[in-house]
Amino acid sequence: MADITRHGTTPRWSDLVMHRGIAYFVEVPEDPQLEPRAQFEQLFRQVDERLALAKSSRKALLQVLIYLPFPEDLTVFNELWDAWIPSGHAPSRACIHTQLAAPGYRAELIITAACDAP
Amino acid sequence: MADITRHGTTPRWSDLVMHRGIAYFVEVPEDPQLEPRAQFEQLFRQVDERLALAKSSRKALLQVLIYLPFPEDLTVFNELWDAWIPSGHAPSRACIHTQLAAPGYRAELIITAACDAP
Amino acid sequence: MADITRHGTTPRWSDLVMHRGIAYFVEVPEDPQLEPRAQFEQLFRQVDERLALAKSSRKALLQVLIYLPFPEDLTVFNELWDAWIPSGHAPSRACIHTQLAAPGYRAELIITAACDAP
Repeated sequence: MADITRHGTTPRWSDLVMHRGIAYFVEVPEDPQLEPRAQFEQLFRQVDERLALAKSSRKALLQVLIYLPFPEDLTVFNELWDAWIPSGHAPSRACIHTQLAAPGYRAELIITAACDAP
Repeated sequence: MADITRHGTTPRWSDLVMHRGIAYFVEVPEDPQLEPRAQFEQLFRQVDERLALAKSSRKALLQVLIYLPFPEDLTVFNELWDAWIPSGHAPSRACIHTQLAAPGYRAELIITAACDAP
Repeated sequence: MADITRHGTTPRWSDLVMHRGIAYFVEVPEDPQLEPRAQFEQLFRQVDERLALAKSSRKALLQVLIYLPFPEDLTVFNELWDAWIPSGHAPSRACIHTQLAAPGYRAELIITAACDAP
């Protein structure tokens, strides 16, 4: 299993796991005190940083599962999402309204992306 | 990332994403006005069409995550699912009752399948 | 699709699906009558057995999605999880509180792992 690369590894999770050209990561906004729009803007910036670390990009997203605990956030989330996704490169996507284990966060993304990192 | 193929790409999602022999897609029934059984029948036909587009098949399903927002639909969903899955080729499967971001739909499937398409 | 290996295949699901060095499996505790801590201990033993069958290990977990239907179980789940994860090898992880289709179970894990099995 020498071909697994991990970043930001804690006893509970890794911020990024890469294996044979696929990056796996889960993202929540760093600051759950922000209002929803600001949390989502922060979240997409974090995803960009994580993709850069993986030598990947927004154009290489394969599948994104979206957990949005507050249904009233869907419109603003989608507005920011649509602007963030590069034209012609949208991933497979599913979105549910479910309670997150971590309180306060307005969104959690489970991301699978192609990457060039080893 | 020249090795990613997308079909049915909108500003928000792609209907099908393929990368190195794996097909990623999310499916909901086309017509949320149908009663549950008819939605599920339609859903499985759509999955068959998507698998054909990916040069894959029901026998190549690797993992299916099932979102069923209405617990009372589980029995009829399973009846149709069991008939649809080819004997000896069932995927890894998980099923939860959760609220979908898209109202009216009685099921959403998150599918990972092996495929022969590039 | 000759390169897919399935174990524990029923008409509804397979206990383990492997394809090109990736193992996909979903795990719930065998005995939903046990109290939560005992269910989680049993669950991690089952995952160890499944990983062994796949010629994989705890060190090769790539992504784990955790469904915990009872929020009050999170503390004990995390205590056992943290002890079970090998230092420096934590996977990408997401955890939600959602209703499982199968009643009584206190946890369901959706696991993607690197494996040496064909």
